[in-house]
Amino acid sequence: MKMDVPKSLFLHEDSLGIVTDLYQLTMAAGYFEQSMQDIATFELSVRHLPENRSYLVIAGLEQALHYLTHLKFSAETIKFLGQLPIFNNVSQKFFEYLKNFTFSGNVHAMAEGTIAFAGEPLLRVTAPIIETQIVETYLLSMINFQTSIATKASRVVYAAQGREVIDFGTRRAHGPQAGVLAARSCAIGGCKGTSNVFAAYALGIPPVGTIAHSWVMAFENEQDSFNKFHETFPDDTILLIDTYDTLVGARHAATIGKKLKGVRIDSGNLLELSKEVRRILDNEGLPHVKIVASGDLNEDRIDDLLKNGAPIDSFGVGTEMVTSKDAPALGGVYKLVEQKHDGRTIPKMKFSEDKLTYPCKKQVYRTIDKAGNFVEDVIGLEGEKIGGIPLLIPVIKDGKICYDLPTIHEIQRAASNNLAHLPEPFKRLTGAKTYPVTKRQGLEAKRHEAEKILRDMNIP
Amino acid sequence: MKMDVPKSLFLHEDSLGIVTDLYQLTMAAGYFEQSMQDIATFELSVRHLPENRSYLVIAGLEQALHYLTHLKFSAETIKFLGQLPIFNNVSQKFFEYLKNFTFSGNVHAMAEGTIAFAGEPLLRVTAPIIETQIVETYLLSMINFQTSIATKASRVVYAAQGREVIDFGTRRAHGPQAGVLAARSCAIGGCKGTSNVFAAYALGIPPVGTIAHSWVMAFENEQDSFNKFHETFPDDTILLIDTYDTLVGARHAATIGKKLKGVRIDSGNLLELSKEVRRILDNEGLPHVKIVASGDLNEDRIDDLLKNGAPIDSFGVGTEMVTSKDAPALGGVYKLVEQKHDGRTIPKMKFSEDKLTYPCKKQVYRTIDKAGNFVEDVIGLEGEKIGGIPLLIPVIKDGKICYDLPTIHEIQRAASNNLAHLPEPFKRLTGAKTYPVTKRQGLEAKRHEAEKILRDMNIP
Repeated sequence: MKMDVPKSLFLHEDSLGIVTDLYQLTMAAGYFEQSMQDIATFELSVRHLPENRSYLVIAGLEQALHYLTHLKFSAETIKFLGQLPIFNNVSQKFFEYLKNFTFSGNVHAMAEGTIAFAGEPLLRVTAPIIETQIVETYLLSMINFQTSIATKASRVVYAAQGREVIDFGTRRAHGPQAGVLAARSCAIGGCKGTSNVFAAYALGIPPVGTIAHSWVMAFENEQDSFNKFHETFPDDTILLIDTYDTLVGARHAATIGKKLKGVRIDSGNLLELSKEVRRILDNEGLPHVKIVASGDLNEDRIDDLLKNGAPIDSFGVGTEMVTSKDAPALGGVYKLVEQKHDGRTIPKMKFSEDKLTYPCKKQVYRTIDKAGNFVEDVIGLEGEKIGGIPLLIPVIKDGKICYDLPTIHEIQRAASNNLAHLPEPFKRLTGAKTYPVTKRQGLEAKRHEAEKILRDMNIP
Repeated sequence: MKMDVPKSLFLHEDSLGIVTDLYQLTMAAGYFEQSMQDIATFELSVRHLPENRSYLVIAGLEQALHYLTHLKFSAETIKFLGQLPIFNNVSQKFFEYLKNFTFSGNVHAMAEGTIAFAGEPLLRVTAPIIETQIVETYLLSMINFQTSIATKASRVVYAAQGREVIDFGTRRAHGPQAGVLAARSCAIGGCKGTSNVFAAYALGIPPVGTIAHSWVMAFENEQDSFNKFHETFPDDTILLIDTYDTLVGARHAATIGKKLKGVRIDSGNLLELSKEVRRILDNEGLPHVKIVASGDLNEDRIDDLLKNGAPIDSFGVGTEMVTSKDAPALGGVYKLVEQKHDGRTIPKMKFSEDKLTYPCKKQVYRTIDKAGNFVEDVIGLEGEKIGGIPLLIPVIKDGKICYDLPTIHEIQRAASNNLAHLPEPFKRLTGAKTYPVTKRQGLEAKRHEAEKILRDMNIP
């Protein structure tokens, strides 16, 4: 069979129900056939932070909430499922159930822009067990990715020491939608703009960009290309000067005069070139003209450039930031911690090697000092009387959003404010100390209790 | 301003025009204002293969073609652009032009499943320069990502030596759409199935999956959970046996008897555990029961397991494959190589440090021996009389698809067949030899010519 029309593979609300792993749906069918209507609680957390990370900047909640409040199974996707051989023995009633499926549960989550650490629950879902199961894959994928990128971006922004960082990464992101999600996460991590126009349009992030090498190459010579760009963009003339020879390019750019806004260097030795270009611009009486650097930058290279006095005003960062290249996956997991069965609340945990989990609904309590600086986090049971600020807040109640969604700018400010209150030793780029996160005795007791119940039942 | 409704950030055909970098649109406006209607040719290629890669499996063309044939600017997105301060000086005529914008050019590309190497043009776009410019970002993002994942998957499949590899990666992909694109690319790279139901639905890839730890934890004890799953899925009972104790789990699973299809081990020492589990199953008279392994697998770990005789029948691979974790970005670039101006065809190239490009429309000619094995590739000028099979084929003519789109199964077979004909030394997992790719003298001459023209014009 040949195809006439190429497939977009775009996601759409109608098909959200099946944007999940097959085993979520086989388990859903299994629970349904067993008339298992227990209310389950799952928690999403990250067991170990990736290498070179000492904290997480939480992101992705808004898209997770969109998913939970729009999730459904269209007639067409139900028909598809019904035809899969694996469902041969499943009753028609299950597919009827899917027809009316909506998420009806409660969700607590850390707000976007919150700083979190290994082992802390970032999001908690309580709902009939079928619902908690179906939503796992999408929630993990969205929160893993956005949190991973917001965290990486915050490190790049930290390295830039107040200089502007712009997301230039769409072309190297993991597909066009990942580029949009990355632009959002980079903004949360502190980037001042993005090259991604759709992200700017949909989210109100400032779009940034002027010319590529192809513009320069498309005209007879570099000077001509610069002059022509300036004609159309007199107030936004930032010229790319490394197409042929960076220092010659700087002199060509300087002929634009006072209206020149900036020059960009995208290759070569950025330290040496930025110094020489600064000298050329200053000699031409253009000290106000900004130098933008780009080309395989990351937090370490930016740190190195600035430590060596590179006179760079703005960094365009792409590949390394939008793929979180040194740690391209965040290992978030989503685990059953509690189940209500016949009126009893049963703590649940898993003890596979290296994958032990803590049972029961938990809360993270953050202690801050008088200046607002973070002192310690305590993971306790939900409702335990523990001092500090509880970080998990209600965001969905009975399937409906019960939370004032902040704008991207508010989230960005929150993240920036939180990072400012995370003491230096816990956020430096290399050799950062491990932030103190302790578990309360009540939680340890629950774990021993759950462990005993499980061992009694399962282990000979 | 607070928001009522969370944003999905889904892509949609109406907004495809702005799923690009801002500078593509500023350059487009600049070309428009300069009445620059030159026909330009851009080529997409990968300068250097990432570490641990000795070839590329091309993927992503179908979605690239969808984009090129559906790309437009909706009234709303045009209004958004018109309000951006950077466009203040751009005439209304440009926005009128965008209203009717469609891609009208020609595209040549390597078919999906083709094996390619560093420096080879993978895709070539010839169109009015504005069009070639606007499409750059999306094409790069789609082809970079899918090619990166198809290549990684092919290495994992190679390591599995004929044993089944399944994509389990959606939860760690870079967002939900990346999970779908990754599932597609993994299938092209040789995976026999995916856990991603939407990918199965949209593409016809076999969906795979049975139970998670949460299923086992949701019942009173493991044996009960296994029995209950078997009730609903009598012909597809693959049981996850490591929730509590893998060997006990294997014994619990074995009580299902002859109808048991498989067991899955997701943690611990997979080599030792698979051997002991195999022994337990064989002792119970269940030699037909398959062992599925999962948990942080990649090509090296699979190679190691199989070299040590692990009796594993099927590998579920997630994070490492769908993020191409050891090389999470492919550095594809898209460069102007030729321009028709006033009837003259001008070769174009760039010579930034380390980023030198070759001018003119190129073709890749592959020499194969009588057995069909790959011998050598030659990069020459399009139309040059060179032996071998030309790899770039016409896929879009005057904006319309002129190519029979293969199905995913056909692409998978093509990739598998191509990889079978790539001699062993060029594809082994470590220490692979560099496949011979040479450039023809005609091309070198063109480069010298272009270099001379450019130096005369630009360099003092």
